[in-house]
Amino acid sequence: MGVTERPFVVERAGDTIPGILWSPEASAGPSPLVLVGHGGHGEKRNRNGLAMARRLVRRLGYAVAAIDAIDHGERGPIRPPDHRAYRALWHKPDTFDRMSADWQATLDALSDLPSIDSGRVAYWGLSMGTMFGVPLVAAEPRIKVAVLGLCGFTGPSADRGRIATRHAAEAPRITCPVLFFVQWHDERFYRQGAFDLFDQVGSKDKRLHAHPGAHGELPAAEATDATIAFLRPRFSSAQEA
Amino acid sequence: MGVTERPFVVERAGDTIPGILWSPEASAGPSPLVLVGHGGHGEKRNRNGLAMARRLVRRLGYAVAAIDAIDHGERGPIRPPDHRAYRALWHKPDTFDRMSADWQATLDALSDLPSIDSGRVAYWGLSMGTMFGVPLVAAEPRIKVAVLGLCGFTGPSADRGRIATRHAAEAPRITCPVLFFVQWHDERFYRQGAFDLFDQVGSKDKRLHAHPGAHGELPAAEATDATIAFLRPRFSSAQEA
Repeated sequence: MGVTERPFVVERAGDTIPGILWSPEASAGPSPLVLVGHGGHGEKRNRNGLAMARRLVRRLGYAVAAIDAIDHGERGPIRPPDHRAYRALWHKPDTFDRMSADWQATLDALSDLPSIDSGRVAYWGLSMGTMFGVPLVAAEPRIKVAVLGLCGFTGPSADRGRIATRHAAEAPRITCPVLFFVQWHDERFYRQGAFDLFDQVGSKDKRLHAHPGAHGELPAAEATDATIAFLRPRFSSAQEA
Repeated sequence: MGVTERPFVVERAGDTIPGILWSPEASAGPSPLVLVGHGGHGEKRNRNGLAMARRLVRRLGYAVAAIDAIDHGERGPIRPPDHRAYRALWHKPDTFDRMSADWQATLDALSDLPSIDSGRVAYWGLSMGTMFGVPLVAAEPRIKVAVLGLCGFTGPSADRGRIATRHAAEAPRITCPVLFFVQWHDERFYRQGAFDLFDQVGSKDKRLHAHPGAHGELPAAEATDATIAFLRPRFSSAQEA
């Protein structure tokens, strides 16, 4: 199945949010949509995200959308390894709320497309994609399934505590099915704190998959396979491959 | 694909070990073999084990074998809810070694069958199947993949400590790929102790899948799917479905 890639732009409250929509070249009808939030220092078309987007389109026939997070990608100035600008992001008081609003405006815009089934929307984001994803998924009832992980309440960075406070308040409000990835030797988010975040997620239907290795060593193809196995039965319909 | 079910008996050191072999009705050549160890108070043809055996045969074309554990099934006297006889099993000094030897004798016998590929053998056992499985997999190099879980170093039973001591010594000797299941609210083996056992498994290629719910609430069909997804690439050959 061919994959169409279309850039888009959403305007919201003076912000320009650049995004990409990947979709099946030929589709029998409206497709489920997976919103993909990239990791820290990444951008909407990062290598792993791009590979996964293409696989989700080809193997499931779903549409996939990614946007640049605040201060990332075309919204700079964060470029690896610019830790100062990255850290500054977490000290802005409105970072979480802006990011949730950016995603919600994006979802509003994409829901208007006839190719998108706005009743079947998932969010997928690890690491910073979960730091932003927890408040988003907690707040947005249109998101029916979420894949989260590589994130938790504890880690070596001093910023973790502030983020953990927000996550602790919002994780229990997540009620949709959640697949959560943990790297057993994660050096950025300690294992126990990741278990604690998973424990706090309010969903009855949740799964934790742990793999050996450091934060950056999640096996991408296996994570995609697990994502597909998790999404497919929860979005099942005659349209799927 | 049709499934053939054949009872067998292995004699070892005065013990009679009753077993069942499930295999594909039609096979293109020798099949991988999955040894399935049942849980406490169970027996070789328990409902979940039988369903999984049939699925592994049908979906992978593998052979599956189960035996009655010591004092279980046809080797009585343990019948649910006979906790006294069950507890007594763990106070016999040779329980682990007898059980490993029983499985090894079973594997010897099945390896002589032309339908079995003795180079591709897996062990699958949860709860008591892991209590016996850890020493077995650690000791038996013919076992190339293992699925373990619902077990760990800590729990409410006073017997756990003795078993944990043995597991702590032997888990690091396991080096084959391991898929490990944890029930998040396991009341028989505490979550943290299950994580600790997984942590001690020596394999580089290991995975932990955690599901919500109590000890007995592992979703069986999902566990079978995960087992298949784990075994298939590690035993891949042209013979597989």
